[in-house]
Amino acid sequence: AGDVSAGKAKSAVCATCHGADGIAIMPVYPNLAGQNAEYLESALKAYRDKQRQGGMAAIMQMQATNLSDEDIANLAAYYASLN
Amino acid sequence: AGDVSAGKAKSAVCATCHGADGIAIMPVYPNLAGQNAEYLESALKAYRDKQRQGGMAAIMQMQATNLSDEDIANLAAYYASLN
Repeated sequence: AGDVSAGKAKSAVCATCHGADGIAIMPVYPNLAGQNAEYLESALKAYRDKQRQGGMAAIMQMQATNLSDEDIANLAAYYASLN
Repeated sequence: AGDVSAGKAKSAVCATCHGADGIAIMPVYPNLAGQNAEYLESALKAYRDKQRQGGMAAIMQMQATNLSDEDIANLAAYYASLN
């Protein structure tokens, strides 16, 4: 499983849209607080691998493009830990 | 905005994976309870329009393929109303 504190450190740019507490600043973005880590990993990898288009996917593809599997596991663990 | 009770009526099949209360039965599926309705609409349309691949997208494409815009708005309103 990912490292929550490493995920928190990595999450600064994510907070811009998903909120400092994982509650999105606009309703077109998903809340991430308390989401399942395994799902978050799957979604981030789908963005990274350009398997997700539509909606805000273009923004997320850019955000995810440089994330390593470890970054993704850490971010997922961090957001899953918020409630 | 969608109709929560119509969304609840439509959500029976969704509950199979996303849980009767919007908390997923397995961590590879997302929790939907309290998610932003606007995001949920965007995601469901992306599945319906086959813009999302990767992860469990294949299952969701099948589920979303016959949903009307009205169904999608109602389901989104219903899940956003759960907390």
